[in-house]
Amino acid sequence: MRPFTLIAGPCAVESREQTLATAYAVQAGGAAMLRGGAYKPRTSPHTFQGLGREALTMLAEAREATGLPVVTELTDVRELDAVLEVADVIQINARNMQNASLLIEAGRSMRPVLLKRGAAATLDDLLLATEYVLNEGNDDVTLCERGIRTFERSTRYTLDVSAVPVLKERTHLPVIVDPSHAAGRRELVRPLSLAAVAAGADGLIVEVHPDPDHALCDGRQSLATAGFAAYADDVHTLARAMRRTELAVAA
Amino acid sequence: MRPFTLIAGPCAVESREQTLATAYAVQAGGAAMLRGGAYKPRTSPHTFQGLGREALTMLAEAREATGLPVVTELTDVRELDAVLEVADVIQINARNMQNASLLIEAGRSMRPVLLKRGAAATLDDLLLATEYVLNEGNDDVTLCERGIRTFERSTRYTLDVSAVPVLKERTHLPVIVDPSHAAGRRELVRPLSLAAVAAGADGLIVEVHPDPDHALCDGRQSLATAGFAAYADDVHTLARAMRRTELAVAA
Amino acid sequence: MRPFTLIAGPCAVESREQTLATAYAVQAGGAAMLRGGAYKPRTSPHTFQGLGREALTMLAEAREATGLPVVTELTDVRELDAVLEVADVIQINARNMQNASLLIEAGRSMRPVLLKRGAAATLDDLLLATEYVLNEGNDDVTLCERGIRTFERSTRYTLDVSAVPVLKERTHLPVIVDPSHAAGRRELVRPLSLAAVAAGADGLIVEVHPDPDHALCDGRQSLATAGFAAYADDVHTLARAMRRTELAVAA
Amino acid sequence: MRPFTLIAGPCAVESREQTLATAYAVQAGGAAMLRGGAYKPRTSPHTFQGLGREALTMLAEAREATGLPVVTELTDVRELDAVLEVADVIQINARNMQNASLLIEAGRSMRPVLLKRGAAATLDDLLLATEYVLNEGNDDVTLCERGIRTFERSTRYTLDVSAVPVLKERTHLPVIVDPSHAAGRRELVRPLSLAAVAAGADGLIVEVHPDPDHALCDGRQSLATAGFAAYADDVHTLARAMRRTELAVAA
Repeated sequence: MRPFTLIAGPCAVESREQTLATAYAVQAGGAAMLRGGAYKPRTSPHTFQGLGREALTMLAEAREATGLPVVTELTDVRELDAVLEVADVIQINARNMQNASLLIEAGRSMRPVLLKRGAAATLDDLLLATEYVLNEGNDDVTLCERGIRTFERSTRYTLDVSAVPVLKERTHLPVIVDPSHAAGRRELVRPLSLAAVAAGADGLIVEVHPDPDHALCDGRQSLATAGFAAYADDVHTLARAMRRTELAVAA
Repeated sequence: MRPFTLIAGPCAVESREQTLATAYAVQAGGAAMLRGGAYKPRTSPHTFQGLGREALTMLAEAREATGLPVVTELTDVRELDAVLEVADVIQINARNMQNASLLIEAGRSMRPVLLKRGAAATLDDLLLATEYVLNEGNDDVTLCERGIRTFERSTRYTLDVSAVPVLKERTHLPVIVDPSHAAGRRELVRPLSLAAVAAGADGLIVEVHPDPDHALCDGRQSLATAGFAAYADDVHTLARAMRRTELAVAA
Repeated sequence: MRPFTLIAGPCAVESREQTLATAYAVQAGGAAMLRGGAYKPRTSPHTFQGLGREALTMLAEAREATGLPVVTELTDVRELDAVLEVADVIQINARNMQNASLLIEAGRSMRPVLLKRGAAATLDDLLLATEYVLNEGNDDVTLCERGIRTFERSTRYTLDVSAVPVLKERTHLPVIVDPSHAAGRRELVRPLSLAAVAAGADGLIVEVHPDPDHALCDGRQSLATAGFAAYADDVHTLARAMRRTELAVAA
Repeated sequence: MRPFTLIAGPCAVESREQTLATAYAVQAGGAAMLRGGAYKPRTSPHTFQGLGREALTMLAEAREATGLPVVTELTDVRELDAVLEVADVIQINARNMQNASLLIEAGRSMRPVLLKRGAAATLDDLLLATEYVLNEGNDDVTLCERGIRTFERSTRYTLDVSAVPVLKERTHLPVIVDPSHAAGRRELVRPLSLAAVAAGADGLIVEVHPDPDHALCDGRQSLATAGFAAYADDVHTLARAMRRTELAVAA
């Protein structure tokens, strides 16, 4: 059976200290991988856009220090080589889900790819976007549900938890969930994480920051490092229970 | 702590035999209440519209036989007295969520009310609709998330599992989930049920039929009575685990 | 060719004076019918709910005074007889589009019916709801697009202007548009009205008030009586141009 | 007053003959610019992906032959120089609306930019994406509404015609509409075009093909060259009428 994978880290790499502190905290809490954004092309150009290659160096140091593999986003084909020097997994985010050039280059790199569903993408669209990567001979792709755009305004996006069992009907690729972007508020991250695990997700990718209220990016939806271990315990407890239950039911 | 409530039964009451068979099966499986529709004003007038008052008599007999309280839908103010003779809980469905006349009459009846969120209703809209019932002095209202309308086509509606923690932030009323209507396919009912429980739902309302492939209404999304007990076991196991976890976390 | 029909009047009947003033103004501006709500079961029970039967009397007086036929909403089957005493056209609003009891009673009344699309209703759903009326032998039904619920927040709803040509492909029933509810802001009513006419709508239903800033209901989206004639002129000019163009193209 | 701009041409450049035939036809019909895609990164990698640089050469020839300026899409920053050799206007499509690298390079090129709204982008998102171009000192940007993703299935996307007046309230940039992608069916292109013009659009961008039923891309929504002149006449007639009306109203 596929192991359950908890990926955690800051939305954006902001400094060496913040990155290392978060990496140590999520490792201590039981995360299996470190996430962190170097390039942050955000909705508005007037906000923090990421530290770029400098951030990649910090992620490399955090990996060295903790041993955690690094997941980081590729946003521009011209940065592929730089990203490949650090990324154990190349993340392609929602707004680039249908960026064919990126998908093809990520495919050709033969590096594992984490592909997030676009906010207006059907599950069919997501599976077709995946084909751009698979088509290059790279079948190490993890799919990620992170919320779709709907009329409901009490959450940033609407987590489509049904995506987990539906994708698992249609593909053998692992399916994980990003509750942070879906919720947009840290208070909802724990219940949505548990819901995703109960629906059968193979992992979670969550945002964690030592001081969320002063984060340069997505602080509102980041868990604090201080509470991460308790959160991770609950998630792992449920994940283990689910595995047992599934076996029992499948037997 | 509020007990977890599993409500189960056919979409529509079709016959005395089907109703009794389902009632016995869901009782044996551990359901706490029996659901069943007498009035089925469906999208098209050219489909089965329910047995009406005859169905209410069958539900009364099933309650007598099993001791299960009955949840049934009120769709027309003129049927209020007939429904009150049988219903332990008056259900108001998604398409009537903003039917003020029904809400007011349900409120005045002082009978418990199960109010489902409309497919285009925000959570604010749902809470305002609830005010129509509360306003009559009846505060025994249970809210029910049953999927919202989005662009995604692999499910009938999109289950907005975030509705559970969001509603629980804003109200002390119990919140349950209807995974059957959200999914539209029985294969998804179990994972969505578990997701709802993990998100903190106080209960579930699911469709069950002795022979779903020949049901007159919503057979595609009905669980078979044959598999109900195993399903209910999984749900209750998770519900108990969640209660323990919440206590531990809250302590 | 079917005549173009401009229906105008207040969201809600608030007083004898307001109703008469609006009726005279929309008649002078060239409206063909007067609209006005007697029953206003709104999102929250804590807002103005309409004057009920008293309002019907005011509408009757306005019809007497101006000769304009009256369109008014039926929201409760128990009010059918009262509404039939005044309404030349029975309006069934978005939130009651799938209220089968209302649709059946409106059908049986043999009075013309104006049926608005629900905010989450597909065009297929609207046509199936129409069947409930037609099924009673009443084929005098006008369909009305009034905006659907989407993620966009700069308008109250999203006017689905494509509904006009799509419905006209599928049915011979007249199709009109309500730009007021779709827009939610009076500044947008004129451009959306012209868009609807250009798309082929057979009419418009708009909200008009003598003093929109002090309206008890939907003032933000009501045109002022003062500007109504200029608005109606533009609409009618385009409607005439469209008819000529269609003939030319069809010839 | 800003002139009304009708942009027309094939979804994809398929051959020299198809491109020239379409260019001559749309010129004869009164189009002001030629559109045509060289790079077609589509939903699935298993469909036609465009002729790339070869297509750019064909577009250059069509411009030479007809004098029509060329609008063509940039999908990859590495193709910028090649595109700049041909494009009078750089088009950035819906799925790249939030591709910051592309927006920045298009901005730096100082070439006019046509930016299409993403299918899940609010109008606020579109205006913020525009800032990426403006921020580079390039203020020659035209915004394009092309349909948003909603639950309605009778059209490919839902044309949000309100986007036209809303964007015109918020920016002085020209706003055009793409009815072809919104509709997904050529029967709807004429009514949606007229609706857009009546709502105040400064132009339209439509797909035209000599033989739509055999087009390699989006044939279902392409107008035939044969009917283009009649279509363009209707559009221009309405556009002139609107300009007169606006002046009259504004005076």
